[in-house]
Amino acid sequence: MIGVDWGTTSFRAWRLGRDGAVLGARVAARGILNVQDGDFANALRELCGDWLAEGEERVLLCGMIGSRQGWAEAPYLPCPAGAAELAEALVEVPFAGAHIRLVPGLSAHDRQNVPEVMRGEETQIAGLDSADGLVCLPGSHSKWARVEAGRVVGFETYFSGETFAALRSATILGRMMPDAPTDLDAFDRGLARAGDQGHLLHHLFGVRSRGLAGALAPAASASYLSGLLIGHEVGAAMATGAHVTIVANAQLTALYTRAVVARGGVATQAPPEATARGLARIGARTWP
Amino acid sequence: MIGVDWGTTSFRAWRLGRDGAVLGARVAARGILNVQDGDFANALRELCGDWLAEGEERVLLCGMIGSRQGWAEAPYLPCPAGAAELAEALVEVPFAGAHIRLVPGLSAHDRQNVPEVMRGEETQIAGLDSADGLVCLPGSHSKWARVEAGRVVGFETYFSGETFAALRSATILGRMMPDAPTDLDAFDRGLARAGDQGHLLHHLFGVRSRGLAGALAPAASASYLSGLLIGHEVGAAMATGAHVTIVANAQLTALYTRAVVARGGVATQAPPEATARGLARIGARTWP
Repeated sequence: MIGVDWGTTSFRAWRLGRDGAVLGARVAARGILNVQDGDFANALRELCGDWLAEGEERVLLCGMIGSRQGWAEAPYLPCPAGAAELAEALVEVPFAGAHIRLVPGLSAHDRQNVPEVMRGEETQIAGLDSADGLVCLPGSHSKWARVEAGRVVGFETYFSGETFAALRSATILGRMMPDAPTDLDAFDRGLARAGDQGHLLHHLFGVRSRGLAGALAPAASASYLSGLLIGHEVGAAMATGAHVTIVANAQLTALYTRAVVARGGVATQAPPEATARGLARIGARTWP
Repeated sequence: MIGVDWGTTSFRAWRLGRDGAVLGARVAARGILNVQDGDFANALRELCGDWLAEGEERVLLCGMIGSRQGWAEAPYLPCPAGAAELAEALVEVPFAGAHIRLVPGLSAHDRQNVPEVMRGEETQIAGLDSADGLVCLPGSHSKWARVEAGRVVGFETYFSGETFAALRSATILGRMMPDAPTDLDAFDRGLARAGDQGHLLHHLFGVRSRGLAGALAPAASASYLSGLLIGHEVGAAMATGAHVTIVANAQLTALYTRAVVARGGVATQAPPEATARGLARIGARTWP
């Protein structure tokens, strides 16, 4: 089968064997916003036509391709849900020569009954081997999912990544921040500040006042701000000492690992290609 | 005397009688960033030349005009400080035909020894009649000052106003937000959400998820976000039930009053022209 993670800005595809083995992988900057006239069928033929020509007849898509702005809407499935529930809720789209199905996202409600949604992360979680407990999927909108017996029973979203980008691009804090490699010492100082008493809105001003006082170098300030925001997120999302599985690229995994450990927790790094494994598992239930 | 609040983007001046009465007032969009070549002497003659020609010889300036980017640097005065300490620390600048002095800002350290600074707000506080207790000066960088016997003994800054602007202009939250008059019902719902358990970074995503779920109208979403941020700020800065003096324009005063009252507190609105009164008081000590 072919598995595709088709997001807003990128397209990642895998050719998967019966046993879930990755036989081929490809990536393109062809997110759903970069597909002309929303002609996703044509884009798929263009990007994976060779695999289809070689006989692949089953294609499973996850991510924003299943949103209202995508190929077709695969409505959010309420939690609790895991690979079995996702497989039963796939949405088929017409396509000559192959079966194409979309993985739905998940919905939940937080402690105050405010709605929560995810799309794409449910497939990553389905690709984890022993994800029971707390799973952190950092990003623009970080997801923290509680998993029991392989099913997501609830989750909360933190707006940390996009808040960091906005503070950096559109406030006086960003004017002091040249592009610079991550300064882990400054990141850890941001984590420590987040772990202290005090509200994030107050701590943010400290980025400026420490800069003005010469106590934070310009090249270190973006790393300090990152530590502050990730520290606040992690401090709110996990109990002290919790075990957390982190699903992210190498750089974010390293930073969130530091934050979990600083909080007295135990961080497990998910293997790469959790998405491909999740697609293979959901596919195996759909096309046994 | 002439009193001037000369900030980054605006210039406000008052002609003040011996008893502190306001004899004249003027405003111009001539903040320190809008003065060509930093020629502040010339700008002052242009804006207040008539008053000087009529015999005013004493000019007291507060605000960013006393910063490194201003006319001359009036170094931050450490707390505790009030009108008497400010009057003793004025910085004189040369000017033909009048005595011109700059009011210094104040500095402090927060609970974790991170530096705090204010410039301009110290003069507003000096203009209050019975400010003992907690004084809130909302804005891009909101200040919360503790005042004892008329002296500022400490203060904390919250980055709420600039965070609101950045979230609105540079994140997906802002894409749903048309310009609209403040929706007080939505503002109050934001306050209520802030008062619940949960971190701001999580609550921010709820602005989007409530919008997606149809539970928050686009025209109400900016007011909801404002309530969320102000609610978080006020909840962190004041103890439940505290008395707070609010120093701001009419619109911000109304919003912060709602937030203080929602927190079980008692809000006192400062009279307008607190800055002019503060300048008059500091001037009376300088030129008795």
